[in-house]
Amino acid sequence: MPSSTDCPESLPAFADIEAADRRLSGRIVRTPLLEAPLLSRRIGRRVLVKPEGLQRTGSFKFRGASNKILALPDAVRASGVVAFSSGNHAQGVAAAAHLAGIPATIVMPADAPAIKRTNTEAWGATVRPYDRYTEDREALAAAIAEETGATLIPPYDDPFVIAGQGTVGLEIARDLDGLGLDPDLVVCCCGGGGLISGTALALATARPGLPVYAVEPQGFDDTARSLASGRREEAAPGAVSICDALLAPTPGVLTFSLNRSLLAGGLTVSDEEVLAAMKAAFLDLKLVVEPGGAVALAALLAGRVPAGEGPVVAVLSGGNVDPALFRQALAQA
Amino acid sequence: MPSSTDCPESLPAFADIEAADRRLSGRIVRTPLLEAPLLSRRIGRRVLVKPEGLQRTGSFKFRGASNKILALPDAVRASGVVAFSSGNHAQGVAAAAHLAGIPATIVMPADAPAIKRTNTEAWGATVRPYDRYTEDREALAAAIAEETGATLIPPYDDPFVIAGQGTVGLEIARDLDGLGLDPDLVVCCCGGGGLISGTALALATARPGLPVYAVEPQGFDDTARSLASGRREEAAPGAVSICDALLAPTPGVLTFSLNRSLLAGGLTVSDEEVLAAMKAAFLDLKLVVEPGGAVALAALLAGRVPAGEGPVVAVLSGGNVDPALFRQALAQA
Repeated sequence: MPSSTDCPESLPAFADIEAADRRLSGRIVRTPLLEAPLLSRRIGRRVLVKPEGLQRTGSFKFRGASNKILALPDAVRASGVVAFSSGNHAQGVAAAAHLAGIPATIVMPADAPAIKRTNTEAWGATVRPYDRYTEDREALAAAIAEETGATLIPPYDDPFVIAGQGTVGLEIARDLDGLGLDPDLVVCCCGGGGLISGTALALATARPGLPVYAVEPQGFDDTARSLASGRREEAAPGAVSICDALLAPTPGVLTFSLNRSLLAGGLTVSDEEVLAAMKAAFLDLKLVVEPGGAVALAALLAGRVPAGEGPVVAVLSGGNVDPALFRQALAQA
Repeated sequence: MPSSTDCPESLPAFADIEAADRRLSGRIVRTPLLEAPLLSRRIGRRVLVKPEGLQRTGSFKFRGASNKILALPDAVRASGVVAFSSGNHAQGVAAAAHLAGIPATIVMPADAPAIKRTNTEAWGATVRPYDRYTEDREALAAAIAEETGATLIPPYDDPFVIAGQGTVGLEIARDLDGLGLDPDLVVCCCGGGGLISGTALALATARPGLPVYAVEPQGFDDTARSLASGRREEAAPGAVSICDALLAPTPGVLTFSLNRSLLAGGLTVSDEEVLAAMKAAFLDLKLVVEPGGAVALAALLAGRVPAGEGPVVAVLSGGNVDPALFRQALAQA
């Protein structure tokens, strides 16, 4: 990895995203940048979306997991991988491992959405369920790594994972170039911060001056508060949200190190606003978007972003949602 | 239009699809060819889908309507357009007219899905509702054309409309080239036959020898029976189907003239199989697919296509479905 002055060992740089882009070419879905004409009319400015639910395994996570696995030395990769995840990272790692022909073990909360466990096992991974209130998932994953020689694939705080997610930003920049568009801002969800830090890192070079805003669910606005205070803050104790993909309790070390210098600010949305955005994506975009994947669109529709008339880009990070919850979103007025 | 021996005045040729492709470039969504890994595992062969729900207005219809409108002489185009449609063609014409800066009037059944009327009016078109049991939509549209000087945009039986829809086939061929793939067959829905005739015409040149199958709802298998008999047959009297986009009572003259020489055969699916395919697209593809758009996938999942182990391509033609019906599809086991 090229060095950086404030964290020389491990912060990724733009060149690492370009390397990830070459490594992932032909292995990932090159997702389009889609127009949202009816939503554009509704909010009075042109809306474009990056639909990562169309990515393999239904979320952007396949990018980072694949980049990390493909970059491992052959002998190390052969011993397999292990990961802990509430779901989307699990599927991303499971599929990336399957396609690389290596075993994967996933440490997953016993109460994760059923679809996420089913789809992870469908990729041939071994699922090790744990109780999120009494067991330590990181210790479990470390023990498995020790026992089997498997490499831990972190969900976000890893330079190769961040660089892989950053290919989302690189693709957005290229598509904006193709359209000849100069948008006012980009909105992107933020859990641990891997997707948004990689995306912002790509855009800082490919589209300098384009503001990137983090969007989080109410109660899990740890990155918004960390950006305001300048240090890593914790999510509110006892907070709950339907955005199961965005429940990281605090920003990552690497991701926040990038985000505090790259992001324009943090926005928050309510569960009701998220459900409304899911229904809007169904109606106008014909996309299935999961709650955590819909927060950026929710922030646009709720008028949380700085006012203006110029185009805006929203990253829709995934579509792994149980049918029952999706039916609830569609049942709204 | 280049001539053809069996219908010299009006049958489109491959060159017309290439011309449509140039005309539409940058105006339509270049939809990707998506992998469906979990569905592939389920049926034991690689499945790729062409998701036209991601097209502007939520279906392929925008392609043909835009091609027709853009090809009109300027003075004719300025007087506007008129169309009759159960919905998707209406939205395609309305949006294409709006983007061309001309007025559009749409003659639409009073009982069409609410979302289709709402979205048509959102594009600035005037909707003229009619009773599908007592009024003649073609006569109404002709009267409006006479009165206003507007040009009728036929839903399928028009060489420019067919050529515009045929860009779907051209894009599939290019993406197959990019993937280095030689699939066993293509399955595509068939109502009036515009999409499948254009697609098959494109593939006949770009991918000679690749079989293309029409899929229709039970009771509306007029194209399947017409292919078998060699002449244009009618749908079963009193037939009903949830596939509101595929209720044309008989094949078009131009479309059948192409289809009878280009298609490998016709397949049919039940409403239950369609609902199951809609749920499968939700789970594995994160795509909202309307009933008529899901018939090709339904035929694959129900095992209707010729057996084999090679890759298959399914065209998913649109995603304009009312929330209540989509909730019903998700409520299935």
